[in-house]
Amino acid sequence: MLIDSTYLKSFASDNHAGVHPGILAAIAGANEGDAPAYGDDGWTAAFENKVKEVFGSGAEGFAVLNGAGANMVGLALMLGRFDAIICADSAHIATHEAGAAERLLGVKLLTAPTQNGDGKLRPEDITSRLDGIGNPHVSQPTVVSISQATELGTCYSPAEISALAETAHAAGLRLHLDGARLANAAAHFDCDLRAITADVGVDVFSFGGTKNGALAAEAVVVLDPTLTDAVPFLRRQSLQLASKMRFISVQLSALLTDDLWRRNAGHANEMAVRLAHGLAEVDGVSLAQPVQSNAVFVTLPAAVVEALQQRYLFHYWDEGAGMVRWMTAFDTTPEHVDGFLDDLRKAAAL
Amino acid sequence: MLIDSTYLKSFASDNHAGVHPGILAAIAGANEGDAPAYGDDGWTAAFENKVKEVFGSGAEGFAVLNGAGANMVGLALMLGRFDAIICADSAHIATHEAGAAERLLGVKLLTAPTQNGDGKLRPEDITSRLDGIGNPHVSQPTVVSISQATELGTCYSPAEISALAETAHAAGLRLHLDGARLANAAAHFDCDLRAITADVGVDVFSFGGTKNGALAAEAVVVLDPTLTDAVPFLRRQSLQLASKMRFISVQLSALLTDDLWRRNAGHANEMAVRLAHGLAEVDGVSLAQPVQSNAVFVTLPAAVVEALQQRYLFHYWDEGAGMVRWMTAFDTTPEHVDGFLDDLRKAAAL
Amino acid sequence: MLIDSTYLKSFASDNHAGVHPGILAAIAGANEGDAPAYGDDGWTAAFENKVKEVFGSGAEGFAVLNGAGANMVGLALMLGRFDAIICADSAHIATHEAGAAERLLGVKLLTAPTQNGDGKLRPEDITSRLDGIGNPHVSQPTVVSISQATELGTCYSPAEISALAETAHAAGLRLHLDGARLANAAAHFDCDLRAITADVGVDVFSFGGTKNGALAAEAVVVLDPTLTDAVPFLRRQSLQLASKMRFISVQLSALLTDDLWRRNAGHANEMAVRLAHGLAEVDGVSLAQPVQSNAVFVTLPAAVVEALQQRYLFHYWDEGAGMVRWMTAFDTTPEHVDGFLDDLRKAAAL
Amino acid sequence: MLIDSTYLKSFASDNHAGVHPGILAAIAGANEGDAPAYGDDGWTAAFENKVKEVFGSGAEGFAVLNGAGANMVGLALMLGRFDAIICADSAHIATHEAGAAERLLGVKLLTAPTQNGDGKLRPEDITSRLDGIGNPHVSQPTVVSISQATELGTCYSPAEISALAETAHAAGLRLHLDGARLANAAAHFDCDLRAITADVGVDVFSFGGTKNGALAAEAVVVLDPTLTDAVPFLRRQSLQLASKMRFISVQLSALLTDDLWRRNAGHANEMAVRLAHGLAEVDGVSLAQPVQSNAVFVTLPAAVVEALQQRYLFHYWDEGAGMVRWMTAFDTTPEHVDGFLDDLRKAAAL
Repeated sequence: MLIDSTYLKSFASDNHAGVHPGILAAIAGANEGDAPAYGDDGWTAAFENKVKEVFGSGAEGFAVLNGAGANMVGLALMLGRFDAIICADSAHIATHEAGAAERLLGVKLLTAPTQNGDGKLRPEDITSRLDGIGNPHVSQPTVVSISQATELGTCYSPAEISALAETAHAAGLRLHLDGARLANAAAHFDCDLRAITADVGVDVFSFGGTKNGALAAEAVVVLDPTLTDAVPFLRRQSLQLASKMRFISVQLSALLTDDLWRRNAGHANEMAVRLAHGLAEVDGVSLAQPVQSNAVFVTLPAAVVEALQQRYLFHYWDEGAGMVRWMTAFDTTPEHVDGFLDDLRKAAAL
Repeated sequence: MLIDSTYLKSFASDNHAGVHPGILAAIAGANEGDAPAYGDDGWTAAFENKVKEVFGSGAEGFAVLNGAGANMVGLALMLGRFDAIICADSAHIATHEAGAAERLLGVKLLTAPTQNGDGKLRPEDITSRLDGIGNPHVSQPTVVSISQATELGTCYSPAEISALAETAHAAGLRLHLDGARLANAAAHFDCDLRAITADVGVDVFSFGGTKNGALAAEAVVVLDPTLTDAVPFLRRQSLQLASKMRFISVQLSALLTDDLWRRNAGHANEMAVRLAHGLAEVDGVSLAQPVQSNAVFVTLPAAVVEALQQRYLFHYWDEGAGMVRWMTAFDTTPEHVDGFLDDLRKAAAL
Repeated sequence: MLIDSTYLKSFASDNHAGVHPGILAAIAGANEGDAPAYGDDGWTAAFENKVKEVFGSGAEGFAVLNGAGANMVGLALMLGRFDAIICADSAHIATHEAGAAERLLGVKLLTAPTQNGDGKLRPEDITSRLDGIGNPHVSQPTVVSISQATELGTCYSPAEISALAETAHAAGLRLHLDGARLANAAAHFDCDLRAITADVGVDVFSFGGTKNGALAAEAVVVLDPTLTDAVPFLRRQSLQLASKMRFISVQLSALLTDDLWRRNAGHANEMAVRLAHGLAEVDGVSLAQPVQSNAVFVTLPAAVVEALQQRYLFHYWDEGAGMVRWMTAFDTTPEHVDGFLDDLRKAAAL
Repeated sequence: MLIDSTYLKSFASDNHAGVHPGILAAIAGANEGDAPAYGDDGWTAAFENKVKEVFGSGAEGFAVLNGAGANMVGLALMLGRFDAIICADSAHIATHEAGAAERLLGVKLLTAPTQNGDGKLRPEDITSRLDGIGNPHVSQPTVVSISQATELGTCYSPAEISALAETAHAAGLRLHLDGARLANAAAHFDCDLRAITADVGVDVFSFGGTKNGALAAEAVVVLDPTLTDAVPFLRRQSLQLASKMRFISVQLSALLTDDLWRRNAGHANEMAVRLAHGLAEVDGVSLAQPVQSNAVFVTLPAAVVEALQQRYLFHYWDEGAGMVRWMTAFDTTPEHVDGFLDDLRKAAAL
């Protein structure tokens, strides 16, 4: 139910999609009888086992309610009272979480402008921000945080993450990964989820469910065993503990079962590629970023944007630069994409 | 799915219950096509209208994810940087939210021991805590917070709330109400929801859905129009904004439609009364609080507790005092209660 | 310069006294040439050595600007993100620091009503507040904080502190001591400063200078070597780092040299005892607490208070109970006390 | 007393200087008898009147203990819970206050790289950072903060401040000024202090004493009458309230009397100009910023730096760029400067 039914389709966000039927079925399936609250139930135990299966026996998973919550709980684990996080200037924690990092964590964000505006941090962005270590007038960097996929739709390769982890660890910092779209990245590389997290030096990460077909479910996954004891307290205090936890846990279990996460994310990625291929032939319309997940960043004339926005929901990413973001989701169909491309061609031809 | 299937039933918490079928159906019903994220969708608009219908045209409702979240967002609206909240020493915000009030709000809680241990604040608990007003060495009380029903299962009458509101307002403080079980209180008094909130001087309150049959949904309701503008920012920053908001909104709408809230809560209350009546005849077992909602506080011998806990899930409230809490829910049946009473009688007779 | 020169003398606070001439001379003596800022100077090194001389080689001293600052820095060292401090309900950190503990530390204060209202915590006040340990819904107690002398002018004996330290440590908590009037306590017991701190299990404490003749100088003293590294960062962030540190350090060094701390505090204590002895004979006037430092708590008729307040500055501690607090200082003279007693007798005889 | 007496002189910081004799005399002069604590004394009343004399009758002055404290109290007055401050990336609050802004205020700093690296914010730095206003995912900018003089030793002209104030106010933001070296700026422009604060639209600012000859004293000056009520509470909570306030107040009064502030700052500025003139003739040494206060930023060869650092205390500002900062103070003499220039010439000639 779009607010204005004249819209044919939303390409604005993967949050505009609904819930995957398999996940809705899992929720309904958990609605039997009583279950202990706050995670002391069998469905949550099953989810915790799934996390170990998928990410390795050293991984501990904790279900939370949304992506910003997963970030705040995950980061809080690793921060003291006078700390700084090194991240890209486009990082979600820096730009779109309403200042939660500063307010809830009290942390300074040392943001690095990213090369080519691709949203990806490089090892030199870490090393160049370590000068103040030991200086009591300066916030002390203790965590590096990256997003996978990035906010610009690009992905870090396993080798790139390894290099960042190595650089961070060598300087005594930990590596955090905001995995709101981790599934899309793994689908892009056609690799396991652990190949871009546990296997390459990430200490704490989130695994996003909501943008990939869940109703509302994310996981904080902790790979450093010295950090796990604090999670239940931080999750509760950070307002991220569901009382009827079973209904959150089953969403995540469903995604982690039979690779539903990969099917959903892989399909969304394919639709993004289909969209990118289609627009390659349209005059005046060009890709602003490589398509490595379910996001397509495009520059195009304002008049074309205006014409398309009569029928489709999407937003400017950078209006000054004439750049828009188009997102696909698990439920985007080839027909949606092709129809949209038709309309794009018509608008561009005017 | 209880962790240990030897349990027949949980009387530990209304959070142990599942989701009401009507609410699950509402969630499934909202799973059609795209919808704008973060509340800009039609289902959320419908929920906002429901709030105005039920609580009056001056009421603004904001859906959040859990009860502690509703409390933190609601209280944050009314607090500056050097403020104190006056509340009962048994208040959920003081005892069971992992210090979120102090950590996230930075606020001091001025807790009042309640007379008879009934969990209810009196006007004199407010007036006796106002000495420090104007003294820069002292946290300034600006909010009074009460729970309805209280953590001890008791309820404030409309007149009692009016008296607290009058006392608070006369001293320049606002009145907040933690309504995690507001429905149970309204069902107890057989009154409208607004008769114990908007009509009696409450400024900001929460309306709980989760304990009354929802999956995960609460509302912050704001009656003071000067406070509403800040809610979207605080909700986002407090990690209480669902991206796929429609699925939260429909849960609350379902509760507010055709008085489902009253049917669920009224039934739970009746089961509590049935339980209380039944135990009145059992030797050595006595009510510790009047039964005014879906909680039954009881003192009984440790041996009886131990015997019952073989088959039923519930907890001590105050082990030293031999006091337990039994909760009923929308899905507790007369058979559950009667079976439990049978087992109680047997255990007490040993 | 009292605001109203009709006052003969202030008995309101030891903060109403000026600066001891020896301390003023020390400040002037440090005003020679350049010195590195923020504590990298020779006078500060000398102060740090003094701390080791007085409190033992394991003690590390850090100069700060005021008592609340010393408390916040000292406590912050020992607190995580979801912690609670157990303290007396009369503790300065709980009542008179404008909510700094909650706002700056984000900590919950678990306040214990003290027996006889003497301001002293007992071991059972600790053990009875440990129930929530391990429960993620509950703030986790990690620190016990006591004041020496207490806000009621009473003192903990070395044995009493030992018992508290033992109880705290046995439960995994640390012991903090707010020593704004530590000198008065040591003078009362005629013992060394370390006999009531380092030697009896205190982990972190403050050593107050300002109330004992300094202009503005307190020390945070850390006895747990795992905690010292964080102090410089916390002191800077907590706004407690003086740029021209040498002038703070010399005040503390002066107090710690030739037992000036004891001479000042001992004299103030004597004046309090003289006052207490004198009022013992006055009808209708009675001591409300034993006199163990430089505070005299007295109950007396409102008319007598009113008459005395024409000529002397002092305040009610508890107006409802007719209790006032009279404080002496390093510069209170026997003549001041005797003159005050004369006026008291006259007022009481009316 | 420099730690290593082989140093002839420090050019590292105006915080390395001692206390001006007139200010020390003022402190000693206030040491007479009792005075109410926390600012209820005659000396503080006199200081408050001085502030009105100097800055206008609408100005309210509040004495605090250090510059970071003045910034935190001043900024806190203007910030809600989800706010951002726009400032230069070199701002002291962003770089050298140990993350106090993020930790104590919970605020996001939107830092702007400054043109030419001169440390000065331009109106377009404000307007380009207002996009997120009204967007609940984004911290809301409510304050612009500038430093006068800047951390790079440059000064905003009255017209430049006016333009910033106008831009800020037009967008609903307030203008804060960190005036740790406000006196140097006014001396540079040969204008009154109010001509670069109250008269040009600043809402809240600090007036620095410590770097200009005080022992430890700064003022928060508030020009917006709706903000003053909160100051005493914030000052207390922020650990910036001196108990023996009279000794802080008289330092500020001394600076504000007979233009001592101007004489001290003007002299320091002259010494900086003398230094700049002298080094103009030295090969390989060049000014990196215009000299508009008491700071001289210079690029010079590493070997020259190394040679000079044998005899003088000073630091690199940017080692990679070969840039050092030399500061003068009220007590820097022409002989100090000329001797330093001699040594500089010798080192550069090697």
